[in-house]
Amino acid sequence: MQNTNQLFQNGTGAIVVPGLFDGTLSIKDLLLHGDTGIGSGDGLDGELIIIDGKPYKIDGDGNVTIVSDDFTVPFGNAHFADFKDFEVKDNLSIDELNDAIFNEAKLQNTQFAIKLHGTFQSVKVRSVYKQSKPYPNLIKTAESEHIFNGENITGTIIGYYNPSPFSQIAVYGFHMHFIADDLSIGGHLSDFRNFNGEFGIQKFNQFILQLPTDNKEFLEHDFSKDDIEGAINQTER
Amino acid sequence: MQNTNQLFQNGTGAIVVPGLFDGTLSIKDLLLHGDTGIGSGDGLDGELIIIDGKPYKIDGDGNVTIVSDDFTVPFGNAHFADFKDFEVKDNLSIDELNDAIFNEAKLQNTQFAIKLHGTFQSVKVRSVYKQSKPYPNLIKTAESEHIFNGENITGTIIGYYNPSPFSQIAVYGFHMHFIADDLSIGGHLSDFRNFNGEFGIQKFNQFILQLPTDNKEFLEHDFSKDDIEGAINQTER
Repeated sequence: MQNTNQLFQNGTGAIVVPGLFDGTLSIKDLLLHGDTGIGSGDGLDGELIIIDGKPYKIDGDGNVTIVSDDFTVPFGNAHFADFKDFEVKDNLSIDELNDAIFNEAKLQNTQFAIKLHGTFQSVKVRSVYKQSKPYPNLIKTAESEHIFNGENITGTIIGYYNPSPFSQIAVYGFHMHFIADDLSIGGHLSDFRNFNGEFGIQKFNQFILQLPTDNKEFLEHDFSKDDIEGAINQTER
Repeated sequence: MQNTNQLFQNGTGAIVVPGLFDGTLSIKDLLLHGDTGIGSGDGLDGELIIIDGKPYKIDGDGNVTIVSDDFTVPFGNAHFADFKDFEVKDNLSIDELNDAIFNEAKLQNTQFAIKLHGTFQSVKVRSVYKQSKPYPNLIKTAESEHIFNGENITGTIIGYYNPSPFSQIAVYGFHMHFIADDLSIGGHLSDFRNFNGEFGIQKFNQFILQLPTDNKEFLEHDFSKDDIEGAINQTER
């Protein structure tokens, strides 16, 4: 029953932009849709990365914990891993990754996941603190995020690429999270240098979007006044 | 196995705007996802409406046929019907329908289907002719569409409403097709007056989007140059 051609998503990019940070799906239920994924917690509580069915949270101080079944997410992706090896050059940079995928493999209109595991000469990641109600918006929340720089780290990147028509539904372009094998560092990934290791790609042909149709704030919010793409571009790159 | 909370869609609004009109899913496969729906055929061949598992096509001249299993669609929605009665006033107009759904029931952020069956004092529908390759774009195709006006007609409307973040993925707002009980008139609906009959709504919390990931034209197209929302607003209202 595990369809490896499907990407599941709870919530939309549009939902988190104005600060609708209520967790609307439990980790237990998110894991029904995959053993691999990324997301954020209730109140925008940290950065999540799911590897081999284990959901890790990196909090605003950079501390890593495995979250419990009843931990909830306002936004989360999950899928069942079936990555295919994708050949890239040694000492790969993030720009060379983009070049290989878009200029060479021409995957700009395909929805897909990537997984990198190996050593990175450097990674730049960040994470946010859990917010309290009344929630600030996404841009305001991002102002208090912490940036962490790691050097000579062995770890894993899980990322999703969404084509441009998904710009308000998901995160247009790449959305990547990282965690070190020794759990010493992790978060939302904005850069890496000199990667050597395994690189896999998994393409999807079905996208399943679940909306929090029993969440009052979501149902009543006026999204027409939000600059959804602008805010996502500013905070998720 | 029939999940009545799910709306299925093959293709996106973005795909048809630049003229990517290849049928990418057979009616047989579309009907696996529902007994109710709307869509268009290969080459933008007419307007489709699926009622009780029967797929009707209204062609550019207004002729109605039931299409075969191997008829293909570039764009199509389907779901399993489980409409709930929704009370509206007698002699309902399309403006009063919008008022009841958005100003009273506040469903602007919910993805849902509507079904109306009864008598209409008037309906205004239209349909397009099947195009040949090289395909024109959607706006150019719409220039040759036919408009049909019906009076004192008994028939069915199947429609879907998509919230604003779906503006490039689907058709933002209502997308409604109509067919008369006697098959004398049908097509993409742009207006009706004085409806009396049954009105049902079916809300969804999951949206399943299937992309034509084996279609070369789709994979290679540069969507960044298309005015997707503008073209959909101009042609699908």
